[in-house]
Amino acid sequence: MTAIRHLVSIDDLSLAEIRELFEQADRFASDPRGSSQLCAGMIVASLFYEPSTRTRLSFESAMLRLGGGVISAAEMTSSSAVKGESLADTIRVVGGAYADVIVLRHPSEGSARLAAEYSQVPVINGGDGSHEHPTQTLCDLYNLHVERGRIEGLDVVLAGDLKYSRTVHSFAYALARFGANIVCVPQHGFEMPPYVIQRLREEFGVEPVRADVRRLGSLAAESDAVYLTPQKPHQLSLFTDAKGWEVQSVDAVYMTRPQTERYESEEGVGGGYLRLEKGSMAAESLRDAIVMHPLPRRDEISSEIDSDPRSIYFKQAARGVPIRMAILARLTGHVEHPQAAPPLPRHYEVAIGENPCPNPSCVSHTEQRHVQAKFKLTSRSPLRAHCAYCSRQLSFRLVGCSSTRNYHAPDSTMLRKVRPDHLVFFADEAQAAALGFKPVGSARGLGSP
Amino acid sequence: MTAIRHLVSIDDLSLAEIRELFEQADRFASDPRGSSQLCAGMIVASLFYEPSTRTRLSFESAMLRLGGGVISAAEMTSSSAVKGESLADTIRVVGGAYADVIVLRHPSEGSARLAAEYSQVPVINGGDGSHEHPTQTLCDLYNLHVERGRIEGLDVVLAGDLKYSRTVHSFAYALARFGANIVCVPQHGFEMPPYVIQRLREEFGVEPVRADVRRLGSLAAESDAVYLTPQKPHQLSLFTDAKGWEVQSVDAVYMTRPQTERYESEEGVGGGYLRLEKGSMAAESLRDAIVMHPLPRRDEISSEIDSDPRSIYFKQAARGVPIRMAILARLTGHVEHPQAAPPLPRHYEVAIGENPCPNPSCVSHTEQRHVQAKFKLTSRSPLRAHCAYCSRQLSFRLVGCSSTRNYHAPDSTMLRKVRPDHLVFFADEAQAAALGFKPVGSARGLGSP
Amino acid sequence: MTAIRHLVSIDDLSLAEIRELFEQADRFASDPRGSSQLCAGMIVASLFYEPSTRTRLSFESAMLRLGGGVISAAEMTSSSAVKGESLADTIRVVGGAYADVIVLRHPSEGSARLAAEYSQVPVINGGDGSHEHPTQTLCDLYNLHVERGRIEGLDVVLAGDLKYSRTVHSFAYALARFGANIVCVPQHGFEMPPYVIQRLREEFGVEPVRADVRRLGSLAAESDAVYLTPQKPHQLSLFTDAKGWEVQSVDAVYMTRPQTERYESEEGVGGGYLRLEKGSMAAESLRDAIVMHPLPRRDEISSEIDSDPRSIYFKQAARGVPIRMAILARLTGHVEHPQAAPPLPRHYEVAIGENPCPNPSCVSHTEQRHVQAKFKLTSRSPLRAHCAYCSRQLSFRLVGCSSTRNYHAPDSTMLRKVRPDHLVFFADEAQAAALGFKPVGSARGLGSP
Repeated sequence: MTAIRHLVSIDDLSLAEIRELFEQADRFASDPRGSSQLCAGMIVASLFYEPSTRTRLSFESAMLRLGGGVISAAEMTSSSAVKGESLADTIRVVGGAYADVIVLRHPSEGSARLAAEYSQVPVINGGDGSHEHPTQTLCDLYNLHVERGRIEGLDVVLAGDLKYSRTVHSFAYALARFGANIVCVPQHGFEMPPYVIQRLREEFGVEPVRADVRRLGSLAAESDAVYLTPQKPHQLSLFTDAKGWEVQSVDAVYMTRPQTERYESEEGVGGGYLRLEKGSMAAESLRDAIVMHPLPRRDEISSEIDSDPRSIYFKQAARGVPIRMAILARLTGHVEHPQAAPPLPRHYEVAIGENPCPNPSCVSHTEQRHVQAKFKLTSRSPLRAHCAYCSRQLSFRLVGCSSTRNYHAPDSTMLRKVRPDHLVFFADEAQAAALGFKPVGSARGLGSP
Repeated sequence: MTAIRHLVSIDDLSLAEIRELFEQADRFASDPRGSSQLCAGMIVASLFYEPSTRTRLSFESAMLRLGGGVISAAEMTSSSAVKGESLADTIRVVGGAYADVIVLRHPSEGSARLAAEYSQVPVINGGDGSHEHPTQTLCDLYNLHVERGRIEGLDVVLAGDLKYSRTVHSFAYALARFGANIVCVPQHGFEMPPYVIQRLREEFGVEPVRADVRRLGSLAAESDAVYLTPQKPHQLSLFTDAKGWEVQSVDAVYMTRPQTERYESEEGVGGGYLRLEKGSMAAESLRDAIVMHPLPRRDEISSEIDSDPRSIYFKQAARGVPIRMAILARLTGHVEHPQAAPPLPRHYEVAIGENPCPNPSCVSHTEQRHVQAKFKLTSRSPLRAHCAYCSRQLSFRLVGCSSTRNYHAPDSTMLRKVRPDHLVFFADEAQAAALGFKPVGSARGLGSP
Repeated sequence: MTAIRHLVSIDDLSLAEIRELFEQADRFASDPRGSSQLCAGMIVASLFYEPSTRTRLSFESAMLRLGGGVISAAEMTSSSAVKGESLADTIRVVGGAYADVIVLRHPSEGSARLAAEYSQVPVINGGDGSHEHPTQTLCDLYNLHVERGRIEGLDVVLAGDLKYSRTVHSFAYALARFGANIVCVPQHGFEMPPYVIQRLREEFGVEPVRADVRRLGSLAAESDAVYLTPQKPHQLSLFTDAKGWEVQSVDAVYMTRPQTERYESEEGVGGGYLRLEKGSMAAESLRDAIVMHPLPRRDEISSEIDSDPRSIYFKQAARGVPIRMAILARLTGHVEHPQAAPPLPRHYEVAIGENPCPNPSCVSHTEQRHVQAKFKLTSRSPLRAHCAYCSRQLSFRLVGCSSTRNYHAPDSTMLRKVRPDHLVFFADEAQAAALGFKPVGSARGLGSP
């Protein structure tokens, strides 16, 4: 018996698996009616704790195209949740006998990971707060694959709100993983956050370089652009100069809307948001660039370029169906998995003390009854760890060892020897003391205030 | 390749096509299980921007009976619309790959016409504001066809709120088109509006005659009844006298509820609304009349006549399924179209100046980003035009020609020579002047204030 | 032609039929894919006037597993109901041609009985207010059947809110009907209501005995426990003593959540609600007890016993699918009915006077336009009757005979001779007098004020 596969994060899939999904999606797209019995008898449950008609309908359409059935809860908040049921319990019921695969949309970050822990059937993350939305990312990558024939080495402009857009962060990680270069053209004040840059650097070896985007024309006029590339610095130095690496020819422009629902109203977009217009698309560097957008758009893409052959955003949305068909078919075991899954990262329980995840909308806080906080170790020195649910970096000032009952500063070299499952995180000395931990050395009678 | 057929207005269908739909519906009704694979593999998307369970469920039932699948968005307003997505974009996505046919219910008048312009799959209008609801009208006609064997020459009483009921207006046009006679028995203060009468007269040659409805008994007791007939006046004179044409024997009574949601509360129905009761149905003239109602009803039909064999309103609703099956099967190309479609009316863009449609809930106002206002020419002299979306008569006091830059009064004979696509509409002189237009003759130095 | 079978109350099924449903559910559960064409072409309509995702999804899943289709109205209140449509009319339309079977959830008690009267297709009660929810009860019984192999003679603890929980009342009646014994362990202040005890006694011969629940340990610590058994008192006396019958070994604990939505906030659960924990499950008497819960749970079952093999509440929910498959298959005629249905109780119309049902949320009050109040006769002396819709005992102080126009006290022996369809119920003398009824004897000139 094989373990149940979920799709909580795009990291749950290896690059080889993703390429296989693309090939499968190609087959479904070229013959949309040819697989109308593939998932006959299977049922997908759409559990949407916040509305997202587009995501929901595309999954339901995908399942119907595969011959399966759909049970749909578009407005979960008005239902069981009112009676106080935990997400874990709902998942155990729906993922017990009602459905053969679950698509979950939930405002709490990490909720899909939690659901996967409790479900007897595959869980697909249809968006967990501002955390992940892997099928959107797969759809975006798949569009590059179809339109460009490859992803590696492409130059992709990410434009607009790069600060709050979950979609853009996920896409950036995925581009880096596939070896594409990223040109960040942020709306002023909505630059790519440092923690995203940090992860791109640490996990994918991406180097940020100042970019000269004059060739992008009006689109990038006032932008502090950054070029992110997985290439080696010595290669890069061949073609960069004091003004930064010069953006010449772009393969794709990925435009995003302002995520107004995720920021305070006063944090406004003063003089207007970036806008892709006929004029901006006339730049020579964009001559062959496809224009992508995860939709819904508001005014950031003028409707005058809807009919421009480079505008693929509606095709992009349409391709969400075959790629989701590929995902459903694979997770329900209706197509084979010749490629191995990536190893799952080790997760450790936060066995002692308070939950050090600083994210109030993390499921480890919102579903306390059924969640034991967990972390993954990101760095040993200085010691750094991330929440296993929402991926946010844990917040602590001291680290203890549950075996010695000593605590240390995070950059202490002594922490290197502590077993990960013995790690305890403290906000301050008082918290450590309250749990009976002492500063290192104090056990030998040396340290006292 | 044939063009995509939509069902936005009942005028999109020729009389011959409607008769074919009736025959197809007859076949589906006589063997409800016999076509359970006809639309296998097809998906209908229900996009409902306002709730209408009856309409939605009847379409979904129809599609399931044909073996197709359903994706359903019963409460669109709480979803994508919140993120600011335009209807046009939603339709491009859903009508791109998610579904093979779309049923749209939307509060903006003309929305279904707009959707049809943007969809790659057939769009069926499931009600656009108070504008059209063609499948309701087809269902009503189909019931006459089944119960009476014909529509031409029937005498049909329309009773109740004839002012605000979209259903009644559409039904009246359709009856006139099929050559039936209409007896208007309005609730006092809710008479058939002049613009409806005008259209009946202009498009279908219907003549309104004062009606003597004493034979209708209590139903029409205090009503200023009007008889609308496509018959020639000289024929009519044979049986009318000073009191108006005498209503003798009625084939059908079509009762409607007060459309309270469409009028201000103070515009109340003072002494009570018309009510069909056992007593009123005892009138000799109604002996063979079937009683119809588009439902939902409130108190305007007493439940005491529910069991009267003439009451067919529940059968009427039930027949909505086979007629919608016929529509779905035809639009998705699963039954043949031997009959030709009617020629589509020419639409012209409002290329210059403000949108002259006076209807604030017209989609040409509510979806400005994606709609170019359009009109159809209804009369040359005086010049009259209607909005191509919501069908409302355009509101203007002056008409210009974009070629000569002159403007004219609507009844100017000079307008007869202006090409329709050169017409420009102005509310007043100031508006015309602001756009550089001059009164006719002023170009030759004659006119100046 | 056979009459349409509905499932409004579990009393609509004979014990033999219930056992057959269990066997059918066993077959479906052992081969979930084996019946994927059994209901092909059938459509179930989910009409939910209050949200209940769990119930709705389990029915829809069941229908899909049988190969049928689903039309779903999850939020009926925001739709037709707004336009003022009665439940009766909605049912006549949906149960006319849209669907082959209806699942109804409605806040008015008796609504499912009303719907059954108006539907041309089977109606399944998915919960009518706090009245009945027969498929939940069948699911609960089915779980005992699967886990214990029988129901008769089992000792089942009902714990928690026994006052407001519809689920518990229905389950208690069903247990009694099958000959199981019930140990009531109520939350303090939420004891089983007298009318439930009365019905258990009258209809099923159940005798309440004070119970000694010391062996139940902490679970029952402060509870005024009652033992309800269908056994004969003389048998019972063999093992009861002054302290009440001693609860020794329990077969199942059925825990329920506080029905906070059904009582005023001030009627709080002071010192905390009963809670099933690891410690409470350690009691010797519970060693072999399965733990059931209708879900959703809140804090009344600690998550620490979720993994205890005795905890079957998630399995319990999962078994809702095969039992609902069995119900759907039977009501739609896809499996045979070798067992006879129980005789339907006689219902009599309240032909004269006010509706004597005291329940304001009874459908006989909320749907007055389409409901003729009806009653069933429960006892002749004193005369007692229950509402045919909501089952609540009728409230009256005097009873008349529409033939003699006399009225009597309910315990008058003269009432024994009155035909049930001649009974008239009065709140007081004034009401009787207003309708022209006189106290018995006054007709002979005896009584005058």
